[in-house]
Amino acid sequence: MDKQRLIACHERIKPFIHNTPVLTSRSIDKMVGAQLFFKCENFQRMGAFKMRGAVNAILQLSEHDREKGVVTHSSGNFAQALSLAAQSLGVKAFIVMPSNAPQVKKEAVRGYGGIVLECEPTLEAREAQSRAIQEKEGATFLHPSNDDEVILGQGTACKELLESHPDLNYVFAPVGGGGLVAGTALAATYFGNNCSVIGGEPFEVDDAYRSLQSGIIETNTATNTIADGLKTQLGDRNFPIIQQHVERIIRVAEEEIVNAMRIIWERMKIICEPSCAVAFAAVLREKEQFADQKIGVILSGGNVDLGNLPF
Amino acid sequence: MDKQRLIACHERIKPFIHNTPVLTSRSIDKMVGAQLFFKCENFQRMGAFKMRGAVNAILQLSEHDREKGVVTHSSGNFAQALSLAAQSLGVKAFIVMPSNAPQVKKEAVRGYGGIVLECEPTLEAREAQSRAIQEKEGATFLHPSNDDEVILGQGTACKELLESHPDLNYVFAPVGGGGLVAGTALAATYFGNNCSVIGGEPFEVDDAYRSLQSGIIETNTATNTIADGLKTQLGDRNFPIIQQHVERIIRVAEEEIVNAMRIIWERMKIICEPSCAVAFAAVLREKEQFADQKIGVILSGGNVDLGNLPF
Repeated sequence: MDKQRLIACHERIKPFIHNTPVLTSRSIDKMVGAQLFFKCENFQRMGAFKMRGAVNAILQLSEHDREKGVVTHSSGNFAQALSLAAQSLGVKAFIVMPSNAPQVKKEAVRGYGGIVLECEPTLEAREAQSRAIQEKEGATFLHPSNDDEVILGQGTACKELLESHPDLNYVFAPVGGGGLVAGTALAATYFGNNCSVIGGEPFEVDDAYRSLQSGIIETNTATNTIADGLKTQLGDRNFPIIQQHVERIIRVAEEEIVNAMRIIWERMKIICEPSCAVAFAAVLREKEQFADQKIGVILSGGNVDLGNLPF
Repeated sequence: MDKQRLIACHERIKPFIHNTPVLTSRSIDKMVGAQLFFKCENFQRMGAFKMRGAVNAILQLSEHDREKGVVTHSSGNFAQALSLAAQSLGVKAFIVMPSNAPQVKKEAVRGYGGIVLECEPTLEAREAQSRAIQEKEGATFLHPSNDDEVILGQGTACKELLESHPDLNYVFAPVGGGGLVAGTALAATYFGNNCSVIGGEPFEVDDAYRSLQSGIIETNTATNTIADGLKTQLGDRNFPIIQQHVERIIRVAEEEIVNAMRIIWERMKIICEPSCAVAFAAVLREKEQFADQKIGVILSGGNVDLGNLPF
């Protein structure tokens, strides 16, 4: 995935996404002792960066494949992103969701035009249901993070950030399935000026941290984290990019995530998910290492359940 | 207070305030059936529009008076705004607060450099303590809303909004002490193109609504509203402006305020106070009246207690 592919991806998706604002805060800069630039993907369409990859993946399908629709299994932001991206492009989106997924999430997917297909709440059932739709409808399966076109799409957030702030020394991104951090690392390599990418990951689901140590893709035995978007594991498409282009991963404790989220809410007056507070929590944890540096932080999304806040 | 005074005020305070962003939301526009433009004073310095009036009022003092400092009695946003404005201008700010004010509010004032003076929790004690400081220190008393320079300062938010969106048909602002809505009405008169100003006010503290009907300044016997910034009453400086330039006031119920606040948080991913959700609640309540219109909404502030949310 060379520089030209990332440029072409960005041009392709521009009509369908927001170039989200970059916010700063004097009080947070003082707190950290560095200059922070928050790329606000919580203001992206449907409230998360996942819109970028979903749009790109659909646009790269042939005319014939687009007519048949797309399918994924997800109960998170990618389900909504694929639904809205598909709707924006006049394509059908089949979303396989576990029957015990919250009603509000099913309604959100339907609100964006997605066709919800319920299944038993096991990975096997979700995969079987997805395969059935691929066979029956001829729909194309799209993975939320382990897909080259999705990775490129997610990388356009960092590309935009570096276009407006070319002199960043670091960009921090949360690490979940690996699509965002891999795309961010590609963008920093191609468009940064000696810009290093650092991942933030909860201790409770530190599969990516361990994967970088062992050299193979590790999994989590438990996923007891508030950062519900980061419970997934890396894949064979994004892991090599992460190995090559991500400087390191900083792990953070659950209380550090909640504290970072609270600071963003209180000081910046914006709503972000626990998952995206993880990147800022990583900056805070090792702030002495980054004194006086210019640091970009990808605020990945803002879809939270206001009835279930950690404050 | 003519147009030239408002222009001069804006030029005077520009170095000390943010020209806050104007945000839009497709889903909210669809919900309302109109085009809404939210002027985000929740992103203003210290988190509320009150910074504007405080800066202007201090800048209009003589050199001699500035040396003596300023004093106000408030436990709300104006206490913090006056503290930060004074700090930015190298002036002392004495803030009289009731002894039972939340510790977090006292600390916020001190964090912005204000000198907190505690008194008994009665209006009489607050006024007596303020007078004592005026006499002892020679400090100038500044009122949060019933002061010409404060009114002009608050009006600059609407002036900025109309500079970026000159064709608004309506601007909605919440009505508390009357400084914001009066300043907004002046700005709409001077810089709008047939732009009407409408106030939003809780039924529970509808003193301004009743004042417009009776022609005299009415008070509230009880103040049982979640919109804690709107419990105050109009004054003799802002009431005549409101009578002349505000089209009308729409009253809203408490559950409408919480609903409007929730929509702003969920759809726009920004944090606003209950008080400023009142203006949007007023749009929602009578949305049929405003179909297809271009509507500005002043989101007045974002200082909320995350430990005490209505969701």
